[in-house]
Amino acid sequence: MNIQTARRMRGVPPSAVREILKVAERPEVLSFAGGLPAPELFPARELGEAFQAVLRKNPGAALQYGITEGFLPLREWIADRLRARGIAATAESVMVVSGSQQGIDLVARLLLDPGDTVLVENPSYLAALQAFSAYEVNVVALPGDDDGLRTELLDDAMREHRPALVYVVPEFQNPRGTTLAAHRRHELAEAARRHGVPVLEDDPYGALRFRGTPSTPIAALAEELTFHLGTFSKTLAPGLRIGWVHGPRPLMRTMTVAKQACDLHTATLNQHAVTELLRTFDYEAHLGRIRGEYRLRCEAMLRALEHTMPAGTRWSTPDGGLFLWLELPPGLRDDEVFRAAIEHSVAVVPGSGFFVGPPQHGFLRLNFSNQSAEKIEVGMARLGRTLFDLQNRAGAPATVAAQ
Amino acid sequence: MNIQTARRMRGVPPSAVREILKVAERPEVLSFAGGLPAPELFPARELGEAFQAVLRKNPGAALQYGITEGFLPLREWIADRLRARGIAATAESVMVVSGSQQGIDLVARLLLDPGDTVLVENPSYLAALQAFSAYEVNVVALPGDDDGLRTELLDDAMREHRPALVYVVPEFQNPRGTTLAAHRRHELAEAARRHGVPVLEDDPYGALRFRGTPSTPIAALAEELTFHLGTFSKTLAPGLRIGWVHGPRPLMRTMTVAKQACDLHTATLNQHAVTELLRTFDYEAHLGRIRGEYRLRCEAMLRALEHTMPAGTRWSTPDGGLFLWLELPPGLRDDEVFRAAIEHSVAVVPGSGFFVGPPQHGFLRLNFSNQSAEKIEVGMARLGRTLFDLQNRAGAPATVAAQ
Repeated sequence: MNIQTARRMRGVPPSAVREILKVAERPEVLSFAGGLPAPELFPARELGEAFQAVLRKNPGAALQYGITEGFLPLREWIADRLRARGIAATAESVMVVSGSQQGIDLVARLLLDPGDTVLVENPSYLAALQAFSAYEVNVVALPGDDDGLRTELLDDAMREHRPALVYVVPEFQNPRGTTLAAHRRHELAEAARRHGVPVLEDDPYGALRFRGTPSTPIAALAEELTFHLGTFSKTLAPGLRIGWVHGPRPLMRTMTVAKQACDLHTATLNQHAVTELLRTFDYEAHLGRIRGEYRLRCEAMLRALEHTMPAGTRWSTPDGGLFLWLELPPGLRDDEVFRAAIEHSVAVVPGSGFFVGPPQHGFLRLNFSNQSAEKIEVGMARLGRTLFDLQNRAGAPATVAAQ
Repeated sequence: MNIQTARRMRGVPPSAVREILKVAERPEVLSFAGGLPAPELFPARELGEAFQAVLRKNPGAALQYGITEGFLPLREWIADRLRARGIAATAESVMVVSGSQQGIDLVARLLLDPGDTVLVENPSYLAALQAFSAYEVNVVALPGDDDGLRTELLDDAMREHRPALVYVVPEFQNPRGTTLAAHRRHELAEAARRHGVPVLEDDPYGALRFRGTPSTPIAALAEELTFHLGTFSKTLAPGLRIGWVHGPRPLMRTMTVAKQACDLHTATLNQHAVTELLRTFDYEAHLGRIRGEYRLRCEAMLRALEHTMPAGTRWSTPDGGLFLWLELPPGLRDDEVFRAAIEHSVAVVPGSGFFVGPPQHGFLRLNFSNQSAEKIEVGMARLGRTLFDLQNRAGAPATVAAQ
């Protein structure tokens, strides 16, 4: 007997990246495919102590059902951090969610009707596109460049498409690693305000800046219209599934109702333990260690690329985050590079999956956070050989065929 | 500037129970309102050791991103348990979710289009109704009695409404505490099969049977059509947010895509720690302790009700679970009882909120798991006085007015 699925599920593609990650799991493969933070930097011992402490001090509360909005002391800590960045946050404007992916889903659930339009940057974060697609919306993508989304196109796009939401990752965007320039942030805030369009500012990597000066969040520029997402996934550990949404207060009440229907609340124990950890350990020093290490790894990758890539290859120079975006030399396609790279025991993500509309096949996404500088050097050498091999093969077939 | 919310959010009421729980939080109030398990039975020490162990042995994996389906050894453990109950489960048919509430939401997301119909028992679990309502469906409720949903009505109802889903809580239903009789389970399975209607079997309380013999799950009777939900919330602790969905294999793949868009996956650390706990501690003995204690509490409540309630009050006699359903004597309304009870420092849930369609005001839901037998005795005495007072007041006004 066949059960028919809802319409919304027929348009949702499985995440190409997660499929690729399965291929990349072979032990001899050096993977630059995932968006994984460095596990050796997880504060495992300190987390263990924090879990023990809350389970000793107040097990009844730490293990019980909690309120949907999240544990108040944690929301206060988050609101403090956001205020330090110029966002008018309070505990009441902040909700704890099960990773910032849930924040994307909840904002979509709160705001998007079938047939609505969402504006995004092209290329864009895959799992966000996937989340939007479950709400049966149209996604319209505007091009970006080294300074992020080309906001000068927003006015016309908003007039033409009357979007229900603009989605941006302004800091170290996934997949390109680019950061939205300061004047463009103002341009985005003004366009959103002029057209009354809510903004979803997804900021999973903001705390991972290892170069340059911090930018002003969109939520500080258009606070009445902006939902701001953050997470501990890249700074403490993704396996905790603790993120947050800050947004306009009246809407946060409705979002609480939405979250309640989704999963009642985020794990109480994890919220209590993280709050305990933040009370007892030097979070800033910890962030400093992560930034220092990711800077080293990013620089190792940039240096290796200089030495190993064929002429005509280009790449972004990120100021933070996890990713670098590589433009292949003319004539090479991301999917053939992916397959050939696996044969050379190195995994990358083909860039085409991140594009809305016609896929562009000239790009790869490289992650630099999950391998040591030494392995990055080895991996980039393998990738370089892959590219040279493919270029040689590309030259060869005519000859071979003529034999 | 006003942000417009999506249509689906306009029909979703905030959970009445959660609003009531806020009122019930005053320290002098003895609350029988929540659906809270007994915190003194949480295996806090053992959980603390399990978290420590996985953070010591394999912190990199326990804190990292994981696969959407859930941690394989945990899914194997769950599949084993389900097979012991006659359900043809394997690790591939099981997905770990963030509490069984997320299971309800995911099944709804997978199967329900706007305008579809869901059949439920009346009264029914509130947060399920709330989850369905977010998918803009029609909920049609069939009456139940002491043997659960009146399944002899299903055939006609399915012919008339062509539902996309039937939702049942067959064991110790919330709010009534009733169990679906064996012959009705077969009747439900046959009707579902005859009309090709998927069944959502929500089983949060099944492991809490303290009287009678275990029933056959619907998932064992109509496996190709049934999604079965379970949870550790009532047996280990709700604050972990670990539940599971078992369902037809081809649909589980699509559900994985749905879950991925919602929150990527359930907390890796919690999944690893629970798996470690289940390896190292006697879960059956632990369940035995919970069942023994809940039996005592339930019996204490039944005994107290015998002695404290006015004539004409009736109640269910549950074989397990957390709840008992009380029918008020004629002339009393649940909402006035709720308010008067708070004045007597005892909290209950008015039954009307659990009804689909016209609310019925003659019922209360009483929770017996979250207070000691002694406090249950005190609380029921307070509730009894509340009812007598209201009856006297109800008799009084005419006299008073005549003075």
